[in-house]
Amino acid sequence: MPHIDTKNNLPGIRGLMAFRPQTAEPMSQLANILLRDTEGLSPADRELIATYVSYLNDCFYCRHSHGEIACIYLNGDRQLVEQVLMDYQHAAITEKLKALLEIAGKVQQSGKSVEAQAIQAAKDLGATDKDIHDTVLIAAAFCMFNRYVDGLGAITPTDLSSYPSRAQQVASKGYGNHIFSPDQPKPHTTAP
Amino acid sequence: MPHIDTKNNLPGIRGLMAFRPQTAEPMSQLANILLRDTEGLSPADRELIATYVSYLNDCFYCRHSHGEIACIYLNGDRQLVEQVLMDYQHAAITEKLKALLEIAGKVQQSGKSVEAQAIQAAKDLGATDKDIHDTVLIAAAFCMFNRYVDGLGAITPTDLSSYPSRAQQVASKGYGNHIFSPDQPKPHTTAP
Repeated sequence: MPHIDTKNNLPGIRGLMAFRPQTAEPMSQLANILLRDTEGLSPADRELIATYVSYLNDCFYCRHSHGEIACIYLNGDRQLVEQVLMDYQHAAITEKLKALLEIAGKVQQSGKSVEAQAIQAAKDLGATDKDIHDTVLIAAAFCMFNRYVDGLGAITPTDLSSYPSRAQQVASKGYGNHIFSPDQPKPHTTAP
Repeated sequence: MPHIDTKNNLPGIRGLMAFRPQTAEPMSQLANILLRDTEGLSPADRELIATYVSYLNDCFYCRHSHGEIACIYLNGDRQLVEQVLMDYQHAAITEKLKALLEIAGKVQQSGKSVEAQAIQAAKDLGATDKDIHDTVLIAAAFCMFNRYVDGLGAITPTDLSSYPSRAQQVASKGYGNHIFSPDQPKPHTTAP
């Protein structure tokens, strides 16, 4: 049960966002830009960074929500997502993305943990200034989202089978207002 | 020097926001709602929470920027701001705000560090669900802002005399687009 009465039973960040739509709107917009931009980093890369930081922050809800979205972008390769979390150095991803995950991991610890050497390593592997900016901001933003969810004790479904269908909605519709709206009821079929 | 070429010399988060206005806009909106809402927590309370978390995250730029804004709302009482950072339990603030700062300090560590007992203590002292929501989200948001600023090595003025004038602008105009726009040039006076 959440620490506050959200007056709804939506899971995870959705329940908190429905409680306070004024702050939900800019947070959704930020997620939409950071995670769905296709310039430089792909949406798959972006979701993998978000999932990795959520894993490091031990945020079950965000780790599984974003892990499932990454999985969709990776044509269902859930094993690759798990490999990135457990040991990205040996995962089948680009060397550039490995260097960016290294930076994201440092950001998760603290801003000051990011050293010039890690930035240079990413640049040497082709990361642009925008790639590095977005990596740092995705990692920083998930240090916010993860703390928001767990700091308010949001409802966290433990049944993993509930995550893929929601991930499919986000992958197709983005991080819009539907995030913090109740699930649409199925349309009625009226007998003729 | 920042880790990326921001193509401007604006200090702190302003330089990063000018580099990527698409993400700057929702971040400014979020700050505006969380820090300037006057319902429940006052803007002074909100800026004190932001300053305290920035202090815990050792983010010099945010600690001094928001400390100065808090100071303005507190009629120039800089000593009170410092007392809150060093030892809020003995500062001349309400018991309710002390309980909320306790929660904010836990959020800074991790979302999972927030225990039901700390929430109940704040509620017993009159904190509403919205006060608690906003406290957790302000603390979480500054875990993002602080990491964004230091993770990208933003320009951080060490001369403390440069902070008050900017704080005055934010206190009067809010966290709008002027945050990431260059300072306005002084109007020309043309000789008659």
